[in-house]
Amino acid sequence: GFPGSFPAPPVQDPMWGYFTAIAGQDGEVDADELQRCLTQTGISGSYNPFSLETCRIMIAMLDRDYTGKMGFNEFKELFTVLNGWKQNFVMVDRDGSGTVEGHELSQCITNMGYRITPQALNCIIKRYSRSGKIYFDDFVACCVKLRSLTDNFRKRDSMQQGVVNFQYDDFILCTMSV
Amino acid sequence: GFPGSFPAPPVQDPMWGYFTAIAGQDGEVDADELQRCLTQTGISGSYNPFSLETCRIMIAMLDRDYTGKMGFNEFKELFTVLNGWKQNFVMVDRDGSGTVEGHELSQCITNMGYRITPQALNCIIKRYSRSGKIYFDDFVACCVKLRSLTDNFRKRDSMQQGVVNFQYDDFILCTMSV
Repeated sequence: GFPGSFPAPPVQDPMWGYFTAIAGQDGEVDADELQRCLTQTGISGSYNPFSLETCRIMIAMLDRDYTGKMGFNEFKELFTVLNGWKQNFVMVDRDGSGTVEGHELSQCITNMGYRITPQALNCIIKRYSRSGKIYFDDFVACCVKLRSLTDNFRKRDSMQQGVVNFQYDDFILCTMSV
Repeated sequence: GFPGSFPAPPVQDPMWGYFTAIAGQDGEVDADELQRCLTQTGISGSYNPFSLETCRIMIAMLDRDYTGKMGFNEFKELFTVLNGWKQNFVMVDRDGSGTVEGHELSQCITNMGYRITPQALNCIIKRYSRSGKIYFDDFVACCVKLRSLTDNFRKRDSMQQGVVNFQYDDFILCTMSV
């Protein structure tokens, strides 16, 4: 930017104008703004719009400075990640019913590269189903948590051995924030 | 019960009739039924009714057999726990506005006996506030998670040293289910 002015916006980026319109005066996107924006963009397609709760954990997933809001880079990252999850869901939801079965959720999670035992998969399915089916909103909530928790675990597993020694306080910090 | 019959209901318990009316044919309470029942009992008082999401994690907290439903004993336990949390909240929400401030949530958590550093408390406050305030529904969601995660941690911390060595899969199991 010019000396003494605000940083210059990345004018070449087609998403910049869109971002600033959503973010409003404070220049960041909170959960309410994200919910409106995701509903407008139609990323959930014919599926139900995202719940406010899912929007809040999407922000928490990328919120490295714990402000509860999202800057432009996180906003773009979220769209990339969301599109990947949607492709996964659509591939499994072949009849376009808007829901997938428990074993299909397991398949998605395995396809994404997570190595999780059947017992843990079973408990994830129970947690995210409604009447035995998993809706797109809950599927995304599940993906967000799995990604955040795995990231938090990996950061502490410096030797990549699949084992982490957690102090209680650190355990609470990295599980309560997602 | 009589030989060959179903177990006799605990007839002396005044909550039994209430429980069976809510539980319906399958004899257990799911998240939808719990939401209706908590709204009817008026346990949230003048506060907004519980969201379905909070009802789901209340059930997950007590759901030892991972069915996604609650039997009679869990149902009674939930009412006891909920009443305790409500007392805590009401004590802090002196003007009856239905919300508490971040530092008041910290105070509640400390009053409940949790030993959590300011950094972790700060991150919990961010996660559960809306526009800087914490509503009763989110307060209960926060209490449910904190209790479940602490229980899961304690079960593994057999020497009570405040440290647990987590395998990745077990970490996911005990954090994704709540």
